[in-house]
Amino acid sequence: MNEHVDGRKLRFEHRRAEVLRAATEHALDHGLAGLSLRKVAQTVGVSHATLVHHFSTKDELVAEIVDLVLARSLALPDLADDDPEPLETIWQRATSDTGRRYIRLFTAITGHAMHDNPRLRDAVARSMRQRTALLAAGLVRHGCPEPEATALATSLLSTLRGLLVDLLVTADEERVRAAFEDLAAELDRRGAHWQPPARPPSPSATDEVRS
Amino acid sequence: MNEHVDGRKLRFEHRRAEVLRAATEHALDHGLAGLSLRKVAQTVGVSHATLVHHFSTKDELVAEIVDLVLARSLALPDLADDDPEPLETIWQRATSDTGRRYIRLFTAITGHAMHDNPRLRDAVARSMRQRTALLAAGLVRHGCPEPEATALATSLLSTLRGLLVDLLVTADEERVRAAFEDLAAELDRRGAHWQPPARPPSPSATDEVRS
Repeated sequence: MNEHVDGRKLRFEHRRAEVLRAATEHALDHGLAGLSLRKVAQTVGVSHATLVHHFSTKDELVAEIVDLVLARSLALPDLADDDPEPLETIWQRATSDTGRRYIRLFTAITGHAMHDNPRLRDAVARSMRQRTALLAAGLVRHGCPEPEATALATSLLSTLRGLLVDLLVTADEERVRAAFEDLAAELDRRGAHWQPPARPPSPSATDEVRS
Repeated sequence: MNEHVDGRKLRFEHRRAEVLRAATEHALDHGLAGLSLRKVAQTVGVSHATLVHHFSTKDELVAEIVDLVLARSLALPDLADDDPEPLETIWQRATSDTGRRYIRLFTAITGHAMHDNPRLRDAVARSMRQRTALLAAGLVRHGCPEPEATALATSLLSTLRGLLVDLLVTADEERVRAAFEDLAAELDRRGAHWQPPARPPSPSATDEVRS
């Protein structure tokens, strides 16, 4: 492999990621509706040609922004399994300044996905199904019976998304926070009946049973 | 008053409502993103001049479409107080073909309201607060304690909106229906503890307490 080409490729990749990050910031502030390559180029401070070089078309750029935003909105990748209040942690993150910016754009993207945009709709659908599966698995680890985990995860994520949209639209902080606390209390009550899932017995546990 | 003018005014009003209805149908099918007075005029079958005469600007027309859609999405005006399963009735309506078209456009409108559109955001906020107040009042009539009615109404509407968006995006009919049934079962369980709202004690009840 040619070292010169490699170095240039690396710099290009680096530059590309930087442009994507800046374009995403622009979308987080202003949405996707008025987004154009020309406007992004202006804001980001690169030439229109550079932008076209990296992303070809506006649709391509938007698709990458969407992937980034979907991956970060209501994401739970690093939520500790022993977090004593996982729902509160999710809520705190989602309602932080950064969280709100992402949920705002996520909501705008979902809106765009409603009509004549099957590609965007598929991206949002994938994201929703992934979140649901992740949360369902987390609920099972917390003792939720498996047969109801997917339904509960679907319902919980819907409530969280719905509450966040209400908050972003109305800015009724107190009313929405009270609704979140109501939700958390109901989930606590429901979880009080849960049994931790049965685990395969460890050798020592088996010994104990045998002795 | 001049009868001729009156008659013409009536015909104009009639014509205006007809154009608005047709433009709303167009938006229900295709959303608001690509909406233009020219396109609506074409689809509705009136001249561009007629459309401008009735609505002046695209923003004006969009505002009226939005008001119509917000008034109809997840609306509960004629829900009977003695409906044995009010939540199921709301769900059936919202997931009917007509219901889905309205929720789809409502979701698109909410998306548009996220960035740089305070007028649209205010319209959606008004609609959300009205629905919440209506549902909270209904819950109190069903015996929900007043201090928790607004929080529960906020949470319930968020869940319903969220489930409907999930359904429209993923088309996972079974998963979302199961989540709705989980929600309905939880609400039933919660409602089992509710007392009908306190009424002034009747003389005989007072007597019983005394005896």
